[in-house]
Amino acid sequence: MPQQHRAKLTRRAILAAAAEEFDLIGYGAATLSSILRRSGITKGAFYFHFTAKEAVAEALARQYLVSLAEMRQRWLGRSLDPLSTLVGLSGEAARRLEHDVVLRVGQRLAGQRIGAESDGWYAVLDELVRKSAAAGQLRPGTDPAEAARVLYTALVGAYAVGDEPVGLADRFDEIWRVVLAGVAREDWRANPEPTDRS
Amino acid sequence: MPQQHRAKLTRRAILAAAAEEFDLIGYGAATLSSILRRSGITKGAFYFHFTAKEAVAEALARQYLVSLAEMRQRWLGRSLDPLSTLVGLSGEAARRLEHDVVLRVGQRLAGQRIGAESDGWYAVLDELVRKSAAAGQLRPGTDPAEAARVLYTALVGAYAVGDEPVGLADRFDEIWRVVLAGVAREDWRANPEPTDRS
Repeated sequence: MPQQHRAKLTRRAILAAAAEEFDLIGYGAATLSSILRRSGITKGAFYFHFTAKEAVAEALARQYLVSLAEMRQRWLGRSLDPLSTLVGLSGEAARRLEHDVVLRVGQRLAGQRIGAESDGWYAVLDELVRKSAAAGQLRPGTDPAEAARVLYTALVGAYAVGDEPVGLADRFDEIWRVVLAGVAREDWRANPEPTDRS
Repeated sequence: MPQQHRAKLTRRAILAAAAEEFDLIGYGAATLSSILRRSGITKGAFYFHFTAKEAVAEALARQYLVSLAEMRQRWLGRSLDPLSTLVGLSGEAARRLEHDVVLRVGQRLAGQRIGAESDGWYAVLDELVRKSAAAGQLRPGTDPAEAARVLYTALVGAYAVGDEPVGLADRFDEIWRVVLAGVAREDWRANPEPTDRS
């Protein structure tokens, strides 16, 4: 195995073990030793990649933000209308967050970073709800900024209400159904563009 | 001062100091000594009322649930339509939670108690949204159980998005405006019953 490839695998194994450890016992309680124990990686190999637990957390947060940016780019590239783009993007994110502990822990850490405004979702929601308004997809009288804030609040709540990530995608779906009933124009709701292909 | 009255004041001072302490440094980090220091109450006086920090937490949670039950009773007694009752009740709760640390910490602890299903809000929302449906106040096609779940999720998120309770009542208001636009019938939205008196 070429050395570069092996280094990549080691780095990924550290990130996965750290994410599981942070998820199970919490970021504060996790230690370098507990992460090493879980990953089966030596201290020497760890220090080749990271300086400390904090650096792993930073890498998980950054990796999540890169994933979100990639998802956003991909959905924007599909030339759906803005509201369908938003529903499709958030649906894919929910399904991936539900099943991928590395992504999920990265999101949580991104939202908690000192100086970080948020986990990146609010900006995405705000951008696409405003575009939906500009495209005439929202019901008259809808305040796009307010709708984006309420959607963000509901999606944040969707993480908090369940102890487990199980069901996250279903909770996102419900939020969209209820909020869009008030926000989206009837003609869009009657004929949404298909977003099930991701 | 009659002894019973003094005992009541002492108990209230312990609850207030504990709530502030839990709010500032977290339930886990707070200790009996830090609560005593904040309240200025002796260990002896404390043990007259409580056996341990856990018992104070339980009392705060119970006190919050009693307050919520009282608010619910009072709003139900005003004979407003169910949807106006719900909006008024949640508005009062948000304003009180925003300003009253004892109530706020009690709610948080009630939601975290082992064996407790929730902080009591979901049952209240579910009850009143179903009554609203039965009273014909919801738009055709609205699933009351789903609407109650999404409202609960959004209200839970409203706590999480701000680091501070400041603005909680405003966030609740926004949630109602956006969700009711999709859920409530137009004629109710055009002529809601006044709920500003509490």
